[in-house]
Amino acid sequence: MSEQIEERDYDEYRVIEPLGDWKRTHSCNEITAKNLGEEILIMGWVQFRRDHGGLIFIDLRDREGLTQVVFSPEHNVDAHERAHAIRSEYVVAIKGQVRERPDGMINKNLTTGEIEIVVDEWKLLNTSETPPFAIEDRTDAAEQLRLKYRFLDLRRPALARNFILRNKAAQSVRRYLDGLGFLEVETPVLTKSTPEGARDFLVPSRMNSGEFYALPQSPQLFKQMLMVSGLDRYFQIVKCFRDEDLRADRQPEFTQIDIEMSFVDEEQIMGMAENMIRTVFNETIETALPAEFPRMTFADAMRDYGCDKPDVRFDLKLQEASDIFRGSDFKVFGKAELCKVLRVPDGAQLSRKEIDEYTKFVEIYGSKGLAWIKVKEDGTWQSPIVKFFSEEECTKLQELTGCQPGDILFFQAGAADIVNAALAALRLKLGERFELIDESKFAPLWVTDFPLLEYNPDEKRYVARHHPFTSPQVGQIDELAEKPGDALARAYDLVINGYEIGGGSIRIHTPEMQEKMFAALGIDEEEARAKFGFLMDALKFGAPPHGGIAFGLDRLIMILCGAKSIRDVIAFPKTQKATCLMTEAPSGVASTQLRDLGIRLREKKEA
Amino acid sequence: MSEQIEERDYDEYRVIEPLGDWKRTHSCNEITAKNLGEEILIMGWVQFRRDHGGLIFIDLRDREGLTQVVFSPEHNVDAHERAHAIRSEYVVAIKGQVRERPDGMINKNLTTGEIEIVVDEWKLLNTSETPPFAIEDRTDAAEQLRLKYRFLDLRRPALARNFILRNKAAQSVRRYLDGLGFLEVETPVLTKSTPEGARDFLVPSRMNSGEFYALPQSPQLFKQMLMVSGLDRYFQIVKCFRDEDLRADRQPEFTQIDIEMSFVDEEQIMGMAENMIRTVFNETIETALPAEFPRMTFADAMRDYGCDKPDVRFDLKLQEASDIFRGSDFKVFGKAELCKVLRVPDGAQLSRKEIDEYTKFVEIYGSKGLAWIKVKEDGTWQSPIVKFFSEEECTKLQELTGCQPGDILFFQAGAADIVNAALAALRLKLGERFELIDESKFAPLWVTDFPLLEYNPDEKRYVARHHPFTSPQVGQIDELAEKPGDALARAYDLVINGYEIGGGSIRIHTPEMQEKMFAALGIDEEEARAKFGFLMDALKFGAPPHGGIAFGLDRLIMILCGAKSIRDVIAFPKTQKATCLMTEAPSGVASTQLRDLGIRLREKKEA
Repeated sequence: MSEQIEERDYDEYRVIEPLGDWKRTHSCNEITAKNLGEEILIMGWVQFRRDHGGLIFIDLRDREGLTQVVFSPEHNVDAHERAHAIRSEYVVAIKGQVRERPDGMINKNLTTGEIEIVVDEWKLLNTSETPPFAIEDRTDAAEQLRLKYRFLDLRRPALARNFILRNKAAQSVRRYLDGLGFLEVETPVLTKSTPEGARDFLVPSRMNSGEFYALPQSPQLFKQMLMVSGLDRYFQIVKCFRDEDLRADRQPEFTQIDIEMSFVDEEQIMGMAENMIRTVFNETIETALPAEFPRMTFADAMRDYGCDKPDVRFDLKLQEASDIFRGSDFKVFGKAELCKVLRVPDGAQLSRKEIDEYTKFVEIYGSKGLAWIKVKEDGTWQSPIVKFFSEEECTKLQELTGCQPGDILFFQAGAADIVNAALAALRLKLGERFELIDESKFAPLWVTDFPLLEYNPDEKRYVARHHPFTSPQVGQIDELAEKPGDALARAYDLVINGYEIGGGSIRIHTPEMQEKMFAALGIDEEEARAKFGFLMDALKFGAPPHGGIAFGLDRLIMILCGAKSIRDVIAFPKTQKATCLMTEAPSGVASTQLRDLGIRLREKKEA
Repeated sequence: MSEQIEERDYDEYRVIEPLGDWKRTHSCNEITAKNLGEEILIMGWVQFRRDHGGLIFIDLRDREGLTQVVFSPEHNVDAHERAHAIRSEYVVAIKGQVRERPDGMINKNLTTGEIEIVVDEWKLLNTSETPPFAIEDRTDAAEQLRLKYRFLDLRRPALARNFILRNKAAQSVRRYLDGLGFLEVETPVLTKSTPEGARDFLVPSRMNSGEFYALPQSPQLFKQMLMVSGLDRYFQIVKCFRDEDLRADRQPEFTQIDIEMSFVDEEQIMGMAENMIRTVFNETIETALPAEFPRMTFADAMRDYGCDKPDVRFDLKLQEASDIFRGSDFKVFGKAELCKVLRVPDGAQLSRKEIDEYTKFVEIYGSKGLAWIKVKEDGTWQSPIVKFFSEEECTKLQELTGCQPGDILFFQAGAADIVNAALAALRLKLGERFELIDESKFAPLWVTDFPLLEYNPDEKRYVARHHPFTSPQVGQIDELAEKPGDALARAYDLVINGYEIGGGSIRIHTPEMQEKMFAALGIDEEEARAKFGFLMDALKFGAPPHGGIAFGLDRLIMILCGAKSIRDVIAFPKTQKATCLMTEAPSGVASTQLRDLGIRLREKKEA
């Protein structure tokens, strides 16, 4: 059988034919026993060829699925003879009849598993060299290779499926918003450098030499302008850009579902957005999310989970132990700004090696160590630190945590942000370790009542937590000037399974409030005018009350697909070095191009 | 009345109130006599206030329309008193009852023209300074001012309407394509500089110093890659970028409806596209386009109209007179590469002054003069040139044109491209002058059988007329090498009313054909590999037969709206200097930003 293939190379049959008047009648995933006896025409790629019992079989693949095709010398001698030339990934068009597969060959896992096509005529539409990796769902090819040959990688059904779903989700979003009277309005890609936030990508202007456009980090100000102009309900599925050093799951360009509404409060925006997400889950993966998404304040999220995007699919909560240890002889706890404990029921089974690994792991977040107590079966505590505790401290700790034999307690003490970040990350690790997470479950959560500002120790000033156009909550205007750190924002984030998938706010819509905000941020009038002049103008001419929300589409699709990497939901993604291995972008350009733009490369020695 | 407003300024009433729990019940364009007696809540901008008979009237405006609101001291003393503070463009929320307008005040032109809202309670949501121009459909404000205050310009209903229609058209396109199994796939904005075509916008890479991304002129190669990857049917409504000197109706960023299909021929693509355009016209402006769009070859279009995008709403056709005058004593005609005549029935009424203006006009296209013949009522010819014609020439000219008393003939003779361009432009001018164009009509037309290549005298080589990936017609492969100028392409353009709104082709899908094409273009293997390496790789691994089309969305919307400028269908357009007057983009950036990017400004003296 397969040796036979090697004997001759059948090159004389490898003549590529034009389509002519051949037209497909079906996809490769729709012919079933209902079509028995029909004459059909399908086209696609040869997934696999095998020769068996004098017949040649191929699985023909297209975007939708597979159909088994059989070349039989009894049916058509010439078609069968020429089929010897077929190799994997050849492109062929098959005209033939639908017939039942022989009993032993029925494949219940395929839509087309009961039938096969016996070939009357066929055309070779293209040949293919042997691909650098097999086109199969399970692949062990290196990601580098797959990215270089992205056009082949995307043939793998497991990956192609993500883009079918992505399209479905985007159209579902559009249908939903369109139905509510939202207008999709395109905002500029060549825009002005925004001085707050992340680093901009810049585009030198040829016609205005020495000046630069910036690619938008978000259409924030444009969507506010559209509200000032009375368009009332805006949305856009839009590319945004951030020139940041790329963490594992970041891309320099990403897609946002950007939404803004006039004459509404946060309840209306959250209601609309919640229903949109519910609709998308329904229409793409047929999953019903809760009728009402639970809510949690930022303060509660930080207290119980140490972060503002808790994964609430499982229940482990942090507890604050600062009061117990304040002034303790155990100085590490006694002098800490914050001391928190995480009780893991049945966690005492963790080995010393595992605990050492967790200790290393929390160091990523700035932790200097991971204290722990195992509660033994007899109720006694095994721990490197317990000897430093007073009896009262032990009693209070037992009361606080209610720990039982078999449990383990983990501690972090020190600066609040490190304590929280370390325990939040450890909590997720432990959730996986003890299989506490139901991977089939989706747990949406609104996080609300964010602080308006946060102190930036580097810049020694308060900066906007969301952006400087977010409105403080009603009655918090005085806080803004007096205790800026205490003012709460009319802001909300939507979290699913521990990922922030969306966030938004009610915006400031009067010049007076915007001035107070800039003052709290230490931005003087001149600076405000230079940076946000047109916003300040716009607020003077009858801006309506308005607010909005933006969702990260890439992240949302990842969750819907269960994809592990953001690169699996972006057709042509970039590496962590921000390069495209297929097109080899970025690249050097001709010096004349630079001259036209009025720029030159900085010589290395000056760098 | 209006003097009364000036007496006091009512500043004490100008306190902006929060929305609280107020929610809109209706838009400003939906309350009719059916709602009489209902309690409603509307919000919007004050279009106009007038005081009359002790009452205060305002027209309240939102995106949808206008509703008349009346403040009556008999109904609510306080609401009426506070209403004295209201000025144009203030933002207010009105709670009130729907009642019939008094007889004399009914306005049949408004949906809401039979009713008014008598105010129970109202809130001032924002004040407004007096806008720099009135918010009215007819405006004589300079475009510069309107672009600076774009957020106010967009309040004008005539302009806002364009964006409502634009959204409708885009959603209609998406619905149509989605229904046919097209997947919308996002392709990168940060991509590789494309060496063929217009000038790229470049984006310096910070992480790969000295290298640049380019913004895409179109996603051409990406969509072909998606076909190679088997996604089968792709579309995208996508921003594209060209750094060209801007003609009146160009923008540096524009939006394309980009489409690609596998396993189809040009008939299937044209059929799909034609039906899409028909659907969009139906669903947006309720206009039925012809059941089958007429077709014309490129050669016929050039012959009869002098251009490849004829406006076929009117019938004037060019005629070739080269044969008549070849070798004529009238050297201007006798020695010309091409001589063409345009007969205008009843055109003899044109004054000398008008003819002089047309003579100037055709100079724009490189013409050196505009010869003409008026046929007088007695059948004799009045003309500055006829005295140079032989009798035979006159007879043949009469036979060719069939001109009648009252007609005028215009001539161009010289280089073919100038003759055609000048007469094509003159034809449009004359169509307007003699009101031959039915402005309410839409005349779609497919232009087909384009030449594959065209000779570029500057570069002294053939260049691709569409792009180097367009397939020659079947059987034209030999032409490609032997007479490259004669080879026809599998390309097609869709023209409506003389505007090219779309164009596409069947692509080359085998490495052999692509190599022949590069050879005809004088691109050697090394150059091809450097520029299009990944395309050539992709063609080796089983590319399916494929082709596509792209439409200019901005232009299509212009036609649907009847807009005169592309800036009227783009929310935040740029000027001809490629600047945004609202945001003041592009702008200077901090030197640290440039340093991060490894570039510096070229000093002026070097420029």
